[in-house]
Amino acid sequence: MKPSINYSIYLVTDEKCLHGYSLLEAVEAALQGGITLLQYRGKDKSSAEMYTQAVALKALADKYKVPLIINDRLDIALAVGAAGVHLGQDDLPCKVARSICGDDFIIGVSAHNTEEAKQALADGADYLGSGAVFGSNTKLDAGMLGVANLAAICSSVTIPVVGIGGINAVNYREVLAAGANGAAIVSSILGADNIKAATAAFRCIYDAFQQKN
Amino acid sequence: MKPSINYSIYLVTDEKCLHGYSLLEAVEAALQGGITLLQYRGKDKSSAEMYTQAVALKALADKYKVPLIINDRLDIALAVGAAGVHLGQDDLPCKVARSICGDDFIIGVSAHNTEEAKQALADGADYLGSGAVFGSNTKLDAGMLGVANLAAICSSVTIPVVGIGGINAVNYREVLAAGANGAAIVSSILGADNIKAATAAFRCIYDAFQQKN
Repeated sequence: MKPSINYSIYLVTDEKCLHGYSLLEAVEAALQGGITLLQYRGKDKSSAEMYTQAVALKALADKYKVPLIINDRLDIALAVGAAGVHLGQDDLPCKVARSICGDDFIIGVSAHNTEEAKQALADGADYLGSGAVFGSNTKLDAGMLGVANLAAICSSVTIPVVGIGGINAVNYREVLAAGANGAAIVSSILGADNIKAATAAFRCIYDAFQQKN
Repeated sequence: MKPSINYSIYLVTDEKCLHGYSLLEAVEAALQGGITLLQYRGKDKSSAEMYTQAVALKALADKYKVPLIINDRLDIALAVGAAGVHLGQDDLPCKVARSICGDDFIIGVSAHNTEEAKQALADGADYLGSGAVFGSNTKLDAGMLGVANLAAICSSVTIPVVGIGGINAVNYREVLAAGANGAAIVSSILGADNIKAATAAFRCIYDAFQQKN
C-alpha cells in the first residue's frame, strides 16, 4: 500500500547551507523540530558517497517516522529502501521510474508550469514540486514562478503540490494560501543557527493556517 | 537465466575520444567490426540525457545481438533493460546492487588489486574490470596496474577478468596472455579514423591468440 505522506514541511538537504553542523546533526534537529518529509539531494557526489549518506539519513528518518525521498537517483532510493524518488525535468522520465518501482513507491516530479504539471499527473506522479516560488539562493539557475503561477499549478492537478524556492517563515503562509499542500524548504531550515526552532516556526504557521481554513 | 557474455572485445564509450563521428555512428561501426560487449559510460550528464543515450545504444546493441552494460547507474540500466551494470569502487556496493537486481543481472566490478578482486567475487560480481593495465589518456587519474599485477588478479579469482586502460592492437595480446578474458577498450576503437577496421584488428588478434592457446 502506498504510504500516506504529509507534505507540509518538506526538508530538502543541501550541505552548502549548513552553518557549522554536520548534515546528520542538522537533519536530526529538523526532525526534532517537526519536518514531515525529508528529501536527500546529493548532486555532484559519487554514487558510493550518496549511498553512504542516504543509508545514514534513512536510519535517522526512520527513528522519527518521517519518510525519506531521494532526489534524482532511483537506484540510491531502491538501495536504501527509501519511500520514493523526486524527479526533475532533467532526470529519468516519471513513467519509466514508475515501471521499475511499482505503484506503492512515491514519485515526485518537478513541474514549472501547468503543462508540466498535467503531464506529470498523466505519467503517474504522486506529487509535484513547483518553483522557484520566490527567489532562492540554493538553486541559482532556477527561474521565478511566483505565487499566482503556483496557484494555477495547484488548480490544474488533483495530486498534492509542494512549493519550492526561497520559502521562509515569512512567506510560507502565502504558499499554503496558493493551494499548496506544503513547502520544500532548504536554507530557511538548514541555514538557521537554531534549526529545531526554525522548523518549529514552520510547524506553528502551518497549524495556524489549517485552523483558519 | 544469466546471459552468456563474451568479454573479449568490450567497448566502453567516451564521447571525448570521437573524431568527427556521433556516438551512435561510432558505436555502430564498432558493432560492425565485431565488439562483443558494450558499456555505456555517461559521466557528468543529466539522468535524462543518460537515459536518452542509453535507450538509443540499447536499440543499436540489440540489432547486433551484443549485450549492453551501463557504467555506475543501476537505475539507468534498469530503465533501459540493459544486461547489467559496471560498478567502480566509488559506485554502489556490489552486494546492494545484487539485492536489487537478482541473479540474472550482470554485475561487473572494478578491482585494482587482488584484495578488491576477492572482495568483489565474495560480493557476487560476475566479472572484474582491472586496470589501468597501461597508461591511459581516457581516465587521467587512473594509476597504472601493469601486466604482472593483472595476471595476479586473474589468478586470484574464478570469474572473468577484463583488462582496461591504454589497451591497443599492439599490447592487446599481452592482456590475453596475462589470463584476462578480454579487454575494455575506449580510445583505440572510438578514436580511430576507421572504427570498424580498428575493431576488426582486435578480433583478428583475439582469434589468433585463441588458436595458439
